[in-house]
Amino acid sequence: MLKIAVDAMGGDFAPEVNILGAYESVLDNEIEVILVGNEEKIREFLQEKKVLKGKISILHTEDQILMDESVSSAIRRKNTSMRKAIELVKAGKADAVLSAGNSGAMMALSFLLLGKLPNVDRPAIATVMPCLKGPFILLDAGANVDCKAEHLVQFAFMGDAYHKALFNSTSPRIALLSIGEEGSKGNEATKEAFKLLQDTNLNFIGNIEGKDVFFGSADVVVCDGFVGNIVLKVGEGLAEALMKMLKREIADLITGKIGYMMIKPAIKSFRKKIDYSEYGGALLLGIKGTSLICHGRSSAKAIKNAIRVASEMAKKEIYRRISESLKSTEDINEGKDTVNRFLCS
Amino acid sequence: MLKIAVDAMGGDFAPEVNILGAYESVLDNEIEVILVGNEEKIREFLQEKKVLKGKISILHTEDQILMDESVSSAIRRKNTSMRKAIELVKAGKADAVLSAGNSGAMMALSFLLLGKLPNVDRPAIATVMPCLKGPFILLDAGANVDCKAEHLVQFAFMGDAYHKALFNSTSPRIALLSIGEEGSKGNEATKEAFKLLQDTNLNFIGNIEGKDVFFGSADVVVCDGFVGNIVLKVGEGLAEALMKMLKREIADLITGKIGYMMIKPAIKSFRKKIDYSEYGGALLLGIKGTSLICHGRSSAKAIKNAIRVASEMAKKEIYRRISESLKSTEDINEGKDTVNRFLCS
Repeated sequence: MLKIAVDAMGGDFAPEVNILGAYESVLDNEIEVILVGNEEKIREFLQEKKVLKGKISILHTEDQILMDESVSSAIRRKNTSMRKAIELVKAGKADAVLSAGNSGAMMALSFLLLGKLPNVDRPAIATVMPCLKGPFILLDAGANVDCKAEHLVQFAFMGDAYHKALFNSTSPRIALLSIGEEGSKGNEATKEAFKLLQDTNLNFIGNIEGKDVFFGSADVVVCDGFVGNIVLKVGEGLAEALMKMLKREIADLITGKIGYMMIKPAIKSFRKKIDYSEYGGALLLGIKGTSLICHGRSSAKAIKNAIRVASEMAKKEIYRRISESLKSTEDINEGKDTVNRFLCS
Repeated sequence: MLKIAVDAMGGDFAPEVNILGAYESVLDNEIEVILVGNEEKIREFLQEKKVLKGKISILHTEDQILMDESVSSAIRRKNTSMRKAIELVKAGKADAVLSAGNSGAMMALSFLLLGKLPNVDRPAIATVMPCLKGPFILLDAGANVDCKAEHLVQFAFMGDAYHKALFNSTSPRIALLSIGEEGSKGNEATKEAFKLLQDTNLNFIGNIEGKDVFFGSADVVVCDGFVGNIVLKVGEGLAEALMKMLKREIADLITGKIGYMMIKPAIKSFRKKIDYSEYGGALLLGIKGTSLICHGRSSAKAIKNAIRVASEMAKKEIYRRISESLKSTEDINEGKDTVNRFLCS
């Protein structure tokens, strides 16, 4: 039985959604959840539900990290629900951890407490995004703002391993997000990464342009965390803005109301398909453990899905797979070191 | 009467759409168009229309730049329609130039032949994009992939002047595209640009996140050309992908067909609002002249709108306004030089 530590106090709708999500996930799955946070508050919400002995336990903490708290302040405090939840994984008392709280703090604390894998310079955030042909993985979605070519190459390897584990794929198509299909198009980091990726055993299909990302032209889209975070949020915001614009146009029509009623199930189903909460959070890749960052506005369903993904990734030991996969980048890193030594001498 | 030089041979649907767009624009406006390209082909298409004496003239060229030609090859050739069209502006025989051809070549040739304005290190591409509250300006949309903070500051000043000229605004809200609202969030370049922009006389409202861009939270969104080009193309691709996904859901419904018929005018009006061709191309800012890059897939309507925008910007002498506006950045640049000298000594 896998054990998932959940930061009960994290997120805009904490602790309710975390508790409800945990409750629903233990009903369906062969997992246990440890809710970490204020015991009194947690019991208050759990009370309403039939108690599931042995499937949900509580680890009490007095303190919690605030959503808008600075990372430096957040990681200093020792008794927060987020830190205690991550420490459960470190101590081997939980197989994975997740939080919908302060994402910068969750990232920093996971790196700090669980540590980086060998051959990883920069851990990355991988998000699963919907597109016309099913979901694809985008990374880095915000962990590293200024990246070098070698970092992008590592992201490609980590994304490859994650795609294989998550979707049981054998040879996911890896692409670099850039501003033209040719390898000569891009910024300094992507142009160099393009060359390095051509020499790997990955199924590297070259550059992908922004216009093709949501048409499913690649399974894993690699970029630095600044670009990735902007693409993620532009996607989220644009989908919402477009639906609002369309609704406004429909409302202006005489036949709009009845027409809208007729297509409403389609809009509902469409919304479900582009809903982030179906994909259960973003996984931190490159650290020694399984840690998921959930959207601050996560619903109970999103938490439930995140618990499912966390348990799957823990079961498949995703971080060991990444570690294995990254062994083949040792040559690239060694090559780089040689170049660096040469340039500096 | 303003004269606009049009590269008749540029774009996926050249020369038809360019000639048709030119024809329609001289019907409505107080402008003349010089069509630059293969005279025989141009006459063939113009023949079908009533000849507009004195409103459309032709400058014959034998050669033309191909859509997928490398920029270095394209700029070497001396008798291409694109180069000759730009040379008309340089020689004072036209007030503005536009092309739907190879955008890299159009950018490079415009910079090369017309020259940069004083106080501009890097000319930028400014695009007008639709959003929930009307259009906003995004720059740089692809001219400069690796940018420093000072370049972003120059883009802000150029975007400010362009917004004022295009929309007759008095104090457009200028924002930096980043991954968090606080000035401490972002990459090295945006974090430094944030500080520099606070000390300017611009209406700088701080950072804007990807999710807010299409909600109209800013009038001018500033970023480097790598990020800008990706945002531009993600927006274009995502809007198309979402509409396809929604249509597919509607088609799956029993009531979908009739419901769709009822809301069809709304979808049409919505499409018109998010259609790039309404906004008439991207203006090159920071050069001594008025040069517009149109989308390769431009329709006749897009060319007509671009001709209108080009004539407006030429009339308002946008490049002189930018030059005026950039005088106030001299302090920043001088400050920078001092720092550089200090660091290098």
